Amino acid sequence: MAYRIGVIGGGQLARMMVPPAVQLGIELHVLAEVEGSSARLAATAVGDYHHVETVLDFARGVDAITFDHEHVPQEVLAALVDAGVAVHPGPAALAVAQDKLVMRERLTALGVPVPDWAAVRDEHELAAFLADHGGRAVVKTAKGGYDGKGVRVVREAAEAADWFAVLDEAAGEGALLVEELVDFRRELAQSVARRPSGDVVAWPLVETVQRDGVCAEVLAPAPGAGARLVEVAEGIARTVAAELEVTGVLAVELFETTDDRVLVNELAMRPHNTGHWSIEGCTTSQFEQHLRAVLDLPLGDTRARAPWSVMVNVLGGPREGSMADRLPAALAAQPSAGVHDYGKASRPGRKVGHVTTLGDDLDDAVARARSAAAHFDA
Amino acid sequence: MAYRIGVIGGGQLARMMVPPAVQLGIELHVLAEVEGSSARLAATAVGDYHHVETVLDFARGVDAITFDHEHVPQEVLAALVDAGVAVHPGPAALAVAQDKLVMRERLTALGVPVPDWAAVRDEHELAAFLADHGGRAVVKTAKGGYDGKGVRVVREAAEAADWFAVLDEAAGEGALLVEELVDFRRELAQSVARRPSGDVVAWPLVETVQRDGVCAEVLAPAPGAGARLVEVAEGIARTVAAELEVTGVLAVELFETTDDRVLVNELAMRPHNTGHWSIEGCTTSQFEQHLRAVLDLPLGDTRARAPWSVMVNVLGGPREGSMADRLPAALAAQPSAGVHDYGKASRPGRKVGHVTTLGDDLDDAVARARSAAAHFDA
Repeated sequence: MAYRIGVIGGGQLARMMVPPAVQLGIELHVLAEVEGSSARLAATAVGDYHHVETVLDFARGVDAITFDHEHVPQEVLAALVDAGVAVHPGPAALAVAQDKLVMRERLTALGVPVPDWAAVRDEHELAAFLADHGGRAVVKTAKGGYDGKGVRVVREAAEAADWFAVLDEAAGEGALLVEELVDFRRELAQSVARRPSGDVVAWPLVETVQRDGVCAEVLAPAPGAGARLVEVAEGIARTVAAELEVTGVLAVELFETTDDRVLVNELAMRPHNTGHWSIEGCTTSQFEQHLRAVLDLPLGDTRARAPWSVMVNVLGGPREGSMADRLPAALAAQPSAGVHDYGKASRPGRKVGHVTTLGDDLDDAVARARSAAAHFDA
Repeated sequence: MAYRIGVIGGGQLARMMVPPAVQLGIELHVLAEVEGSSARLAATAVGDYHHVETVLDFARGVDAITFDHEHVPQEVLAALVDAGVAVHPGPAALAVAQDKLVMRERLTALGVPVPDWAAVRDEHELAAFLADHGGRAVVKTAKGGYDGKGVRVVREAAEAADWFAVLDEAAGEGALLVEELVDFRRELAQSVARRPSGDVVAWPLVETVQRDGVCAEVLAPAPGAGARLVEVAEGIARTVAAELEVTGVLAVELFETTDDRVLVNELAMRPHNTGHWSIEGCTTSQFEQHLRAVLDLPLGDTRARAPWSVMVNVLGGPREGSMADRLPAALAAQPSAGVHDYGKASRPGRKVGHVTTLGDDLDDAVARARSAAAHFDA
């Protein structure tokens, strides 16, 4: 009997699980939010992941449930576990990814370096934090933020007034997260994968370039990263994966500070944009590894296939027409580029695809990836 | 609008077109012979490819039709062309792949080196050929052979009596093909891809190891192949692709003779077992390239990603249970192996999967691939 994995959510992460599932002979079942989702080829159901019955129905007969995103409510996760379904990552791990305050608390308790932070329930508390941190800080809603949404740099407590106004104790949202504005040299990301029986493997540390709070480019490995930096980053990700008992891929977004510290910015418990380069760039991609991990199969070799891999996101997509219309020009311009079209309509800022290049020369790989990706923008 | 390709045939070649189609945002529609085919995930229809109406129905709305195999009858192909459907490779090219006598005639007319051959209509003609060629020869049925079927080494004309008895002039099968038994050092394969507008790209020349007429292993590039051998092999494949106006992937199986000649053994006008290594091993795999070519999109870079790639077929599959049952042991033994499970039931000699490894050392890559593949056999 073939292995069978159910994925909740039909976005591009579920879509990119399809190729390794086909390769390994794994049946992938996707519960999509809508018809015509990015992962439509593998969508076996369309429904609302907030509904316990919908999700229980969907999970019948699969060997494991995993996710395209981290938004499935805890009560739905609990119902799956109660029904005897293997859920990876599990509810306790996901709880940390679902609430940035819980995440900061857990990381702090584990001794993992994070920016200075506080839970602030009103403008007075925020004002006090600002006063202690040079008059600037980052305010984040604890839940529901992604790709720069729910994140705001403030100089005055009043700038978060609208968010304080809608805090909802009853929904467990009694505070905002405020963090010091970190003086960082660059952003990094460290991905690891952990299987339920405990093995953890790490991919090379990468540098990520963000624009407007959204990942724009990834350079793998992180240029100039010395052995100490690599060891620290990998140590952090391994600690988090082991201590939180994460199963599947864990991506840790990091700041490399101007004073040479490494601080955890965000966590994602699923394949992550900063790991897309691994599809072409590594012996085992993050998507194949995630499938292996959630089935508790032996994990694969994470080594890079080339000295450099570069990933450039297609953000927004063509203003007119579709990525397909631009494919001839892009492929003609860059015959070595791996073009990924997520099958989504264009929309300003939306992640609709990405391009990966490999090579012996970083600048050349960057130029090729940017050139190909540019054909799909504007 | 996304590109849409219709594939006739639901075997593993159609299955392995799914990952690059997902990546490039191409909609793949497969006409499978049966429910539960290897390419079932992309099967949009199940039906008999001998039936004109079934195929015309299937082809409605696709940008191009291509194939998992070369068995679609010429009258069906003609009906598609008459209906205005883009068919790649086209009927004239496929006619050469469908009939080994036609193939030998065309290659000979093109000046492409082939073994000595003749069309023999009866035992007398075969006996004459045997007398001229040292008393041994290879007899092949002109149509329908694959993987060693329809191929027989004979010393006496009577050994082909059963095949002569069923020759059917009315079906255009008036003769058998007989060829000299070539004294070869090894077998090679050269794949190229050609798009309708004419561009041709070539992959590295590979060595193939056959067992019982079936491809067992592929070493890429062909060990010790000098510049002259590579040039000759690539020249042959480019000539055949251009002169026969092949579109999509063309694989040319070659003999490297003990007296340093290169002779064409067989042609395949589709992704081919000898090119499976390109999935992991090349910047653009034969499956992605085939999709690009049949849509007349610019062709991709065919360079290898590693000094060596090795592919080992899984022939037959586990005597008990499925490949999935053996996956944990295989992945544990060889974390660097790319395991491909075609989702087919085990059957003696049947191609049910393959394993690919990459590396800097050929012997090591061979050992890893064989070790992983061995877990799925016996």
